[in-house]
Parts: sequence; C-alpha cells; structure tokens
Amino acid sequence: MGLLSFKDFEINKEFDFGSIILTDQDIIDFAKNHDPLDYHTDKEVAEKSFFKGLVASGPHPFGVFYRTKWVPLFKGTVLGGLEVTYKFFKPTYANKKVFCKGKIEDIKINSEKKYATVRWNFEITNEKGELSQTINMTVLHTILEKK
Amino acid sequence: MGLLSFKDFEINKEFDFGSIILTDQDIIDFAKNHDPLDYHTDKEVAEKSFFKGLVASGPHPFGVFYRTKWVPLFKGTVLGGLEVTYKFFKPTYANKKVFCKGKIEDIKINSEKKYATVRWNFEITNEKGELSQTINMTVLHTILEKK
Repeated sequence: MGLLSFKDFEINKEFDFGSIILTDQDIIDFAKNHDPLDYHTDKEVAEKSFFKGLVASGPHPFGVFYRTKWVPLFKGTVLGGLEVTYKFFKPTYANKKVFCKGKIEDIKINSEKKYATVRWNFEITNEKGELSQTINMTVLHTILEKK
Repeated sequence: MGLLSFKDFEINKEFDFGSIILTDQDIIDFAKNHDPLDYHTDKEVAEKSFFKGLVASGPHPFGVFYRTKWVPLFKGTVLGGLEVTYKFFKPTYANKKVFCKGKIEDIKINSEKKYATVRWNFEITNEKGELSQTINMTVLHTILEKK
C-alpha cells in the first residue's frame, strides 16, 4: 500500500500494521528521552519490579506503529489530531513481538469545510494473543485529493 | 520540591509545572522521531498550512513537562500507567511559551495491595491564557515509603 486518500476511507475498514519487537536498547533509549522511570531504563531494577523484566514505556509500541506504518499511509490526508486515548492492559516486554491492527470506527464529513472527523481504534496484542493496549485517536482528515 | 511520596498526595492538590518554549529545531527533531507529518517537520509547509506556522506534535509539550517536571517529583511512587487521554484544543507554536498545571482529581486506595489508583489532570495553556490541551492520566502509585 502507498499513500492513501480519503476515497480509501470506510467505516469498519481494518488495517493490519504487522508486528514489531522492541529490544532492551530500544526501550531504554526511548524511556531516557521520554519516560525515565527506573523499570523502563534499568534492566536490573525492572527484573526486581512487579513486572519482573524490562518493559516499554506505555506509548512506545504504538508510537513505532504510528510513525512507521500509519503515517506513511495517511499523511497525505491528515489535517490535525483532536484527541488520543491510550489504555494499557498488559506490559510490553523487551524482545517479545507485539502486533497492531487498526480500524476506522467512525467518519463524520463536513462537506462545506472539506474535512472529515475520523475516529480510529487500534489494538495491540502480544505473542500470546492477549490484548495489551488500545489506542483511540480522533483525527481531522481532508476529503480533498491533494496534489 | 524533591522526590515526593504518597503522603504528599491529596485530592484537588495542584502542582505548577511552570513553562517551556519549544524551538523550531525542538519541534522538527521530535516530529522526525515520532510524528513525521509535514507541518511538524517542514517550516515552509507549516507556514502554508491551516496553522500558518510551525506547530509541535500534539503530545510533544506535555511530554517535556512530564519528563522534566512530573517524573522527577513522582518517580519514587509510580508503579505503572493505566490510561492517558490527550485532548488538543489549540496548536503549540514554535518559540511561544506554554504553561502546565496539574491536579490530583481522584485517589482510590487499595490498602491490601498497598497501592492507590490516582487520576491526574493537566492543563496546558498558551501565552494568551487560552486552554491549549488537557491530559488525563490514571496511574498506580505505591502507598509504601520506598527505601
């Protein structure tokens, strides 16, 4: 899939964003820059913590899917974000695969202003098939074809 | 203020996290790493966009307050995050001051498990005093004094 335009949007349409693995170093680097809690930046502390292992900062996994998978497809239509909600159910451990699927849950078109308010829902699951995170994102997308 | 412990928590307690300024380069660097949309990474495109100027990726300003102000105060108590909601009302322009205040909105104590579920609310305002963003964050904090 290349860059998409608004004609590709449809309520309930699903997108498979594949899987990623975050290494110890990925997790530590991200956390040092954004979320410097010991159990994200120090493997020894993490192993003694409730998590019993190094876990990624909450928004880290979706951030990677968003930047490497979602933005390349949808950047031609994005006018701006209105709202994002992350819910964290299970930790994301270092060196374990996590999967992301996304779905367009709602589209409200403002024909006069040539934009649509689109509600996206993403689910991140782990190798055991357990739901690890959900992310709801409300974004304004242009309904015009860009040059 | 140094590192806080759970005895410093109180419903409706407010914290002033001061102000920050994001430069063009701050905004471009963050966006290249996390939110590579043209109007966050390219000043010329941004000036011709709806925003008429370079604007920060939505979660960028709070991310700085969180890392530099909130984490240093509360990291001794944090067990893990449950939920975060960002609402974006006004863009954050390059080289303009934004302010952040936070408030503890709710505390639910689980005495048996020695933790509390705490609902935080943050408001980011701009130089005109307008509400720019709200961030709601639900976090598990230990109620034990750490060594």
